[in-house]
Amino acid sequence: MLTPEQIEKARRKAVEMLKRAGIVVTEEEIRNMEITDFGLGDLYTIGLQIIVYINTERYCAKELILFPRQTCPEHRHPPIDGNPGKQETFRCRWGTVYLYVPGPLTPNPKAIIPKSREQYFTVKHEIILKPGQQYTIPPNTLHWFQAGDEGAIVSEFSSQSIDEKDVFTDPDIIRVPPKD
Amino acid sequence: MLTPEQIEKARRKAVEMLKRAGIVVTEEEIRNMEITDFGLGDLYTIGLQIIVYINTERYCAKELILFPRQTCPEHRHPPIDGNPGKQETFRCRWGTVYLYVPGPLTPNPKAIIPKSREQYFTVKHEIILKPGQQYTIPPNTLHWFQAGDEGAIVSEFSSQSIDEKDVFTDPDIIRVPPKD
Repeated sequence: MLTPEQIEKARRKAVEMLKRAGIVVTEEEIRNMEITDFGLGDLYTIGLQIIVYINTERYCAKELILFPRQTCPEHRHPPIDGNPGKQETFRCRWGTVYLYVPGPLTPNPKAIIPKSREQYFTVKHEIILKPGQQYTIPPNTLHWFQAGDEGAIVSEFSSQSIDEKDVFTDPDIIRVPPKD
Repeated sequence: MLTPEQIEKARRKAVEMLKRAGIVVTEEEIRNMEITDFGLGDLYTIGLQIIVYINTERYCAKELILFPRQTCPEHRHPPIDGNPGKQETFRCRWGTVYLYVPGPLTPNPKAIIPKSREQYFTVKHEIILKPGQQYTIPPNTLHWFQAGDEGAIVSEFSSQSIDEKDVFTDPDIIRVPPKD
């Protein structure tokens, strides 16, 4: 569990990055920013900061803020009832993102896989996204990503987000802590 | 019909605005930018510049670039077959947008309705959007908007866009010119 102090420090850092990138968000959005260590207790290695602009049954838009070399771990968005699973487009707005999807293994990849959990990163086809570049992940497709040395800001455009249904490769991950 | 010179001039102006706002787009996106005068021949009064980032059956994301006081005329996105009609969220990124939707008439509105076509602006409840502020338009709901004195850049997050099905209040408007 992140402490309130750890959360506030991460929030401040994320806000600084948004400012540097010229992306304006409201005080309410800053307060509601999601800061997750995916339950692994090492936020700056495996973690993510998220501002949800809108999430409806039909579409969703978020800003993802990644600290330098911070990794969003491997996962997929499975089909749910009539829904084929979330499809999402990542558009890099600032910094660099190394994105990995199924496909031919990329030799000498740019991301540094977190050592202790190496076995839970299985897709290794690299897509590099610089500002203005984007990539669309089909539903139910494994993917993970890491920011470059400066961090990154990524706009995510997608169908509805139902985070609690995400399937992570790492069995120790808790994406959405159970409610009390 | 806009001349190629008019289109290139508008494209250059839109690119300058994006740069000023720190929004990075690719050369391909600049080439594919949609520049429309809605068939009325007065682009800087009634017109819009659009970069489509992604438009799928499930979701759509665009950047709208509006010149100073440029107006996107009143329209709605009707239901189509099983689809309830496009729902869209406008998020102001730069400048100011005056958005009008059904509701109580706002006294002393900030937008200046284009004189010659005044009768085709019928909804007059004002929403003012500054950077970081957003508003969601339900499907099939009349709306129009005008940029403030500096222009505006607006991110549009939505369900699928099917522009040729849009219904405009002004009968002279041609949103998507018929293909040859």
